[in-house]
Amino acid sequence: MGSVALDDIDAPAGRVQGVLGGAACYFSVAASYFGAVRAVAVVGSDFPREHLEFLSSRGIDTAGIYRAEGDTFRWGGRYHASLNDRDTLFTELGVFEGFDPVLPDAYRNSEFVFLANIHPSLQLRVLEQARAPRFTAMDTMDFWIERTRDELEETLARVDGLVINDQEARQLTAEQNLVRAAAVIRDLGPRIVIIKRGEHGALLFDEAGVFAAPAFPLLEVQDPTGAGDSFAGGFMGALAREGRLDSENLRRAVIYGSVMASFCVERFSLGRFRALSGAEIEGRLAQFRSLTRF
Amino acid sequence: MGSVALDDIDAPAGRVQGVLGGAACYFSVAASYFGAVRAVAVVGSDFPREHLEFLSSRGIDTAGIYRAEGDTFRWGGRYHASLNDRDTLFTELGVFEGFDPVLPDAYRNSEFVFLANIHPSLQLRVLEQARAPRFTAMDTMDFWIERTRDELEETLARVDGLVINDQEARQLTAEQNLVRAAAVIRDLGPRIVIIKRGEHGALLFDEAGVFAAPAFPLLEVQDPTGAGDSFAGGFMGALAREGRLDSENLRRAVIYGSVMASFCVERFSLGRFRALSGAEIEGRLAQFRSLTRF
Repeated sequence: MGSVALDDIDAPAGRVQGVLGGAACYFSVAASYFGAVRAVAVVGSDFPREHLEFLSSRGIDTAGIYRAEGDTFRWGGRYHASLNDRDTLFTELGVFEGFDPVLPDAYRNSEFVFLANIHPSLQLRVLEQARAPRFTAMDTMDFWIERTRDELEETLARVDGLVINDQEARQLTAEQNLVRAAAVIRDLGPRIVIIKRGEHGALLFDEAGVFAAPAFPLLEVQDPTGAGDSFAGGFMGALAREGRLDSENLRRAVIYGSVMASFCVERFSLGRFRALSGAEIEGRLAQFRSLTRF
Repeated sequence: MGSVALDDIDAPAGRVQGVLGGAACYFSVAASYFGAVRAVAVVGSDFPREHLEFLSSRGIDTAGIYRAEGDTFRWGGRYHASLNDRDTLFTELGVFEGFDPVLPDAYRNSEFVFLANIHPSLQLRVLEQARAPRFTAMDTMDFWIERTRDELEETLARVDGLVINDQEARQLTAEQNLVRAAAVIRDLGPRIVIIKRGEHGALLFDEAGVFAAPAFPLLEVQDPTGAGDSFAGGFMGALAREGRLDSENLRRAVIYGSVMASFCVERFSLGRFRALSGAEIEGRLAQFRSLTRF
């Protein structure tokens, strides 16, 4: 569950306008390489049908992508030369503003549930509609950490995993040190904390300790948009495919998340996923092994 | 070869004044856990004898640490809350300004030579005094990249390895992308490029490809000063101890470098090294394995 958006992206490698974006898209497409995905989102009456067809072509169930009267969520961002920083140029929520996510009946038996960044009370509502999930995880952002602290803590207490970036982890816990920050978050509820660090990779904290996954050193990065959501999609997809929730499998799922994020940023929007094979995914997993082996 | 300094450090964890520092100290002490080290540096007439005794107690040959009339190099820095940024409060070069490094005769057969950050022409002079080194590496900084470009390229063409941080790599090559930056540097001469990324670890580039080493996720960091030099000391020390220069051994040496950097930052100045055992080093190496295993 998350946003579907039309993005304007301005990056050193070029500019694109009105391209497919949003956390739910990046997540679902990345996860679709690992098994069946059911998306929950809302789009406006202006949303191109071809985008829904693309999602369906990836085997994603779009029964939960509701079409509402009004405009699709639009976001515009400009990346700096380093690609580590970006400015938001505009955010036009459109139909996303009144989004009240409802799981289609056929979704309620889903075993793996991911709640992308949205108001924590809406995340909780979705969670409560899932009958007996085996593993639930969520993302959040500075806006909710600042303004809806109580609701956020209520939702955090109910999920198995939190996947956020380093700045958000520090903001949420008032701890500069990420090891301490992760410990504070685990005390709030999630058994598993994943801290995303962009081009520096990700850290997984669970009861077995810490796991450090590098980001893949790429020769070319066109567009970092959606990398974190693609990471989450690869992570949840790999976890669901394997089925086991032990530390070994969590670690491998984090690497699959890193693999999907590394493909995501190679092209604007979801461009790279339109021509990505399972063999390429397994190939890059092998490259991750070679990258970290000593 | 490098600086010996007396540092004033202001960090969130506290403040210290006139403590032992300088690249040559951090490097030599870190390397001393792996074998014999010969230091080349200069100190002033004010330099406390106990510091030299500490270096000697670590088995470091201090015959090349010359005492000159005047003041020891002094540096003062203040770290920000994140510990990733610091302001230099003052730099008083003292006797370091006129330093003309000469290898004692007994040093000239050294097989592993590390040239810490100093004017590239002086680095070259030291290199030329080594009779038949098997592996040479150097560090540098923004100041030399900006002002002594020709001399820097001349020295770079003569060393086997360059160990620098990510900002310097970008500045040296005018490439934002670190994979491209490393390729440009390798074209300038060094077969091996190590890019240090502070709390995000280090990347090793050699003919076998890329190796990503994480930094150790520490619960407490008191003072990041000297982490890069301790990394270089652990790296060169481990490399010299093993003797082989193949990719396997380079990777393990990078992890030993990361181990020594992780100990370095746990205490102010060289405090952690005053009570560090070889068993602790091997223990943390095992923790690095567990940190990266999948």
